[in-house]
Amino acid sequence: MYTNAAASSAKPIRCRAAVSRAAGQPLEMEEVEVAPPRAHEVRIKIICTSLCHTDITFWRMEGLHPSIFGHEAVGVVESVGEHVREVAVGDTVVPVFTAQCSECPDCLSDRSNICSKLPDVHGFMPRDGTTRFSSASTGEPIRHFLSVSSFVEYTVVDVSHVVKLDANFPPAMACLLSCGISTGVGAAWKVAAVEPGSSVAVFGLGAVGLAVAQGARMRGATRIIGVDLNPDKFDVGKRLGITDFINPNDTGGKTVSEVIKEMTGGGGADYCFECIGSASVMAEAFQSSRMGWGKTILLGVIGSMAPIGIPPQDLLPGRSVIGSLFGGIKPKNDIPMLAQKSWSWRSS
Amino acid sequence: MYTNAAASSAKPIRCRAAVSRAAGQPLEMEEVEVAPPRAHEVRIKIICTSLCHTDITFWRMEGLHPSIFGHEAVGVVESVGEHVREVAVGDTVVPVFTAQCSECPDCLSDRSNICSKLPDVHGFMPRDGTTRFSSASTGEPIRHFLSVSSFVEYTVVDVSHVVKLDANFPPAMACLLSCGISTGVGAAWKVAAVEPGSSVAVFGLGAVGLAVAQGARMRGATRIIGVDLNPDKFDVGKRLGITDFINPNDTGGKTVSEVIKEMTGGGGADYCFECIGSASVMAEAFQSSRMGWGKTILLGVIGSMAPIGIPPQDLLPGRSVIGSLFGGIKPKNDIPMLAQKSWSWRSS
Repeated sequence: MYTNAAASSAKPIRCRAAVSRAAGQPLEMEEVEVAPPRAHEVRIKIICTSLCHTDITFWRMEGLHPSIFGHEAVGVVESVGEHVREVAVGDTVVPVFTAQCSECPDCLSDRSNICSKLPDVHGFMPRDGTTRFSSASTGEPIRHFLSVSSFVEYTVVDVSHVVKLDANFPPAMACLLSCGISTGVGAAWKVAAVEPGSSVAVFGLGAVGLAVAQGARMRGATRIIGVDLNPDKFDVGKRLGITDFINPNDTGGKTVSEVIKEMTGGGGADYCFECIGSASVMAEAFQSSRMGWGKTILLGVIGSMAPIGIPPQDLLPGRSVIGSLFGGIKPKNDIPMLAQKSWSWRSS
Repeated sequence: MYTNAAASSAKPIRCRAAVSRAAGQPLEMEEVEVAPPRAHEVRIKIICTSLCHTDITFWRMEGLHPSIFGHEAVGVVESVGEHVREVAVGDTVVPVFTAQCSECPDCLSDRSNICSKLPDVHGFMPRDGTTRFSSASTGEPIRHFLSVSSFVEYTVVDVSHVVKLDANFPPAMACLLSCGISTGVGAAWKVAAVEPGSSVAVFGLGAVGLAVAQGARMRGATRIIGVDLNPDKFDVGKRLGITDFINPNDTGGKTVSEVIKEMTGGGGADYCFECIGSASVMAEAFQSSRMGWGKTILLGVIGSMAPIGIPPQDLLPGRSVIGSLFGGIKPKNDIPMLAQKSWSWRSS
């Protein structure tokens, strides 16, 4: 039932936020004012939010403060602006950092998930480049982050960044669909299109890397090698499909790519996923990929603009490097399907 | 008709060769001795050979001399070694620098054209690592090049590097099938799988680049932008499918990628092909590729091991970089088909 008629009557809300005031400094718990949603915008009461490493990467950068970070979340629509028909007050939604306008050539194509009508306007709302956040005490404007900003009780998000979800879906899992799980599963499923019987190497066993493993297993990969410095990751990895583990500190002086080549009969893995955002790990992931058809999929967001450490000569024999933002996932099409699958895994 | 029974009676042949004796120095016309073919080898009388830029790249390198360069050629089988059944004395053949053993996982897969049983043994025959060339005056061994060595009247090539061709096929065209044309057409057709209606940018309009244009046109690309410093290339390019030209010296201070983005409505080309082997051109080709689904295909062989100048961040939004050796062509399967197509183009 749509109750959006009252949209224009929405008032500013005062609430608490974890505000980042300087690069790399502790977040400050502050009272902020959250303006009402404008046209095509939705104000959301955040129920649950989680921390992604990309928040940390940007939190460390200069020039983005004051800002409200956080982009993995789930919430309930509190009010909507004009022209919002897709969701209504009371709906459970996940905000996502990639837009889906459903009109531009990218949104209309199966090949892209990078909306070209509404690219991220760093720190501001995508349509008018302004902010809905301000300090409750001084009125100073506060920046948005990745069009989501979830480290706050209420946030304002463009409707193109919102996906409706069943209200009974567990909030902690919903958060992860908002970024980590979707990014990882999507990378294995949509970007790499892992083939049955393949060998896969996953660099970094955080939420994204573990989701890659899960996605690769769903696609029928038979060898899934996890690489992580933290041996505690290995047990949870096993439950999600990892078949072999490499701790880079425990290889007897060999490089990780040498170990992976040995494990895969000398050739290297069919698919290598970099889920950390480290230039040196990207180079090592690439060197672990098989000549002839090896694909290296980059998922990790990296702070520096240093070039990738891959000599073109090593790429020529049939290898490729593929960038993936949000695992190739089109939020409004794919997240509801992933939610359904997550539910069935959980019950099984 | 097979006349291979006399194979074991083949004698050494003395003939002339253009021998490269030092990096970057003029080739010397010398008398060389060409040993008889051993098991799985074929001795070929070269009818016609052409020059590929890759010959020049390796000719400039230290540590590869004395050597007989040349790897684009066509010839007639003069004698064969034991176990050769695929070709017979008198057959017209093109030698090719990539092997196809037809047995290894790569040769048996549609995804790879990089034979993993017989990788190139730099400078020597692939099965036993020795040479069939020596100086007729001193007996000093002379190195092979890319398993072909065609700047000589007679060469010895492994049968995995030989493709049989109709004897009436024009020799000058046959040479180009041996490397340049196949590399270019294959990159557009097999590696990129250019989609109808696409935009394509080709960097470097040599034989390979022009063949990419031709391949892209065959696949239905509607915009094919050629980039070259030599304006003379533009006329021949037009006949082969190029629709727009960019001379990097004549862009009014804009980068080539800026010009390509303007030409393609702001986004960049769907497919960018680097056909030169220059690290800076590779970076520019990549920057000319569209976010969301832009593919950059690298075909040019480069002398240095410097990393590719691509910041990982620019790759993440759905772009990819794909290496291609010999355009993904499987010599024995694809060259006869390309020969047939070339013939039909020529007659039309």
